[in-house]
Amino acid sequence: MQVKRFNLVRVKENEEYKDNDFVAVEEPLNIRVCYEKCEDFAIIMRTPGDDKELSLGFLYSEGVINSIRDVESVEQVKDNVVEVRLNKPVKVRIRDLIVNSSCGVCGRAFLYTLNILKSDLKVKKELIFSFPEKLREKQSVFNVSGGLHATALFDPNGELLLIYEDVGRHNAVDKVIGKLLLEDKVPASNYIMQVSGRLGYEIVSKGIKAGIPIICGISAPTSLAIEIAEEAGLTLIGFLRGKSFNIYTHDERIF
Amino acid sequence: MQVKRFNLVRVKENEEYKDNDFVAVEEPLNIRVCYEKCEDFAIIMRTPGDDKELSLGFLYSEGVINSIRDVESVEQVKDNVVEVRLNKPVKVRIRDLIVNSSCGVCGRAFLYTLNILKSDLKVKKELIFSFPEKLREKQSVFNVSGGLHATALFDPNGELLLIYEDVGRHNAVDKVIGKLLLEDKVPASNYIMQVSGRLGYEIVSKGIKAGIPIICGISAPTSLAIEIAEEAGLTLIGFLRGKSFNIYTHDERIF
Repeated sequence: MQVKRFNLVRVKENEEYKDNDFVAVEEPLNIRVCYEKCEDFAIIMRTPGDDKELSLGFLYSEGVINSIRDVESVEQVKDNVVEVRLNKPVKVRIRDLIVNSSCGVCGRAFLYTLNILKSDLKVKKELIFSFPEKLREKQSVFNVSGGLHATALFDPNGELLLIYEDVGRHNAVDKVIGKLLLEDKVPASNYIMQVSGRLGYEIVSKGIKAGIPIICGISAPTSLAIEIAEEAGLTLIGFLRGKSFNIYTHDERIF
Repeated sequence: MQVKRFNLVRVKENEEYKDNDFVAVEEPLNIRVCYEKCEDFAIIMRTPGDDKELSLGFLYSEGVINSIRDVESVEQVKDNVVEVRLNKPVKVRIRDLIVNSSCGVCGRAFLYTLNILKSDLKVKKELIFSFPEKLREKQSVFNVSGGLHATALFDPNGELLLIYEDVGRHNAVDKVIGKLLLEDKVPASNYIMQVSGRLGYEIVSKGIKAGIPIICGISAPTSLAIEIAEEAGLTLIGFLRGKSFNIYTHDERIF
């Protein structure tokens, strides 16, 4: 299944109503490599479908296989598990290779323990509408190169406190969190994070870990991001563009 | 330095001229963790700047530090090296943690040996113009969820052979390469790859490894992507939108 329906609240300038929409599915895939025995090689977040192709392409990119002739069989043993049997010993030590080139949470997908957010923060929708424009005003480099993602932090009055840019979406988030750590402001239970890219599992779990109660993005969330946001008590806002946005979880913080 | 100027060829419907433009800088950062001694923890691709914040945020997200009180000092010892000294032993074994949540090439940034592409493929610019529209026509899920990246493979006649969608940009590329492996078509020296997202180091190095001589994207490339494309002999095309695109490297393949 590549997409899944989720309930949401659509907020527009003068209206607000419950609705639902399709969201891209994100789930962990465990790629196992077998020669004499099978071992976990990596856990990558992906959209289900074509998992055998993904596993082979991933092992090729990582240098584990050099052609299809190195492969004896590829089997999807469960929905989220693929076993690739090689016809020669694995040259690289498996432990050195639990490293990922396709996602972030490789090898430790569920090692992030979700904390439950504690925050009384409530924010007016008009404030949320103002974030993209404030972000754009401050984005220095993006405008000339078109290649940088930005992450910003706003206070409850809508003032932009921090902004970081990076080619990696996750890096921009880590820079914000690193700055909060330096200022001893974690858990950051009174701030709102705004990201320029998509809202995937990892971006959202980084925010939750830092105690941020509201995360907004200008683009789409993934299924797993919505699921962990729901569980952790995070208010997840997507498609924040012009004077409209979607609230996917915990809309009680927005009025 | 967050942006850098690169030469390029601008191709528009009826004209073509040399120019230059800013590109977002992408470089590896080695994050080292020290207690009794210093050890490499991860190598992540990032845009230089705020590297201390990035290192702290990254170590926090990875669960190595829980607050700034776990940190004795943070020092940028070289342009691309940060050492974070902890005041307590590292709980997690370093080797288990060379795993990344910010980029793909963590811990093995330069383990991909660049092969030099061998291909006589030449393609008309009119063919390139047609790719985004062909991609859009086939993208099933993206249109309803807005959350999936797509990677497609075209033959020299501009026929779309493969298309894969995934929440992860790298996964969509790995799925294409996995399919090529299954069909024993690697090195894929007669094909053109089209991606829906940005052209970073990792996407481009995956393509080069699979022997693909032309990679096109609708968005911006990074500095490192251009540099490895130049070296490997790859034709790298960015900002492919409507009837225009930029050729960053090896324009001899486009006529």
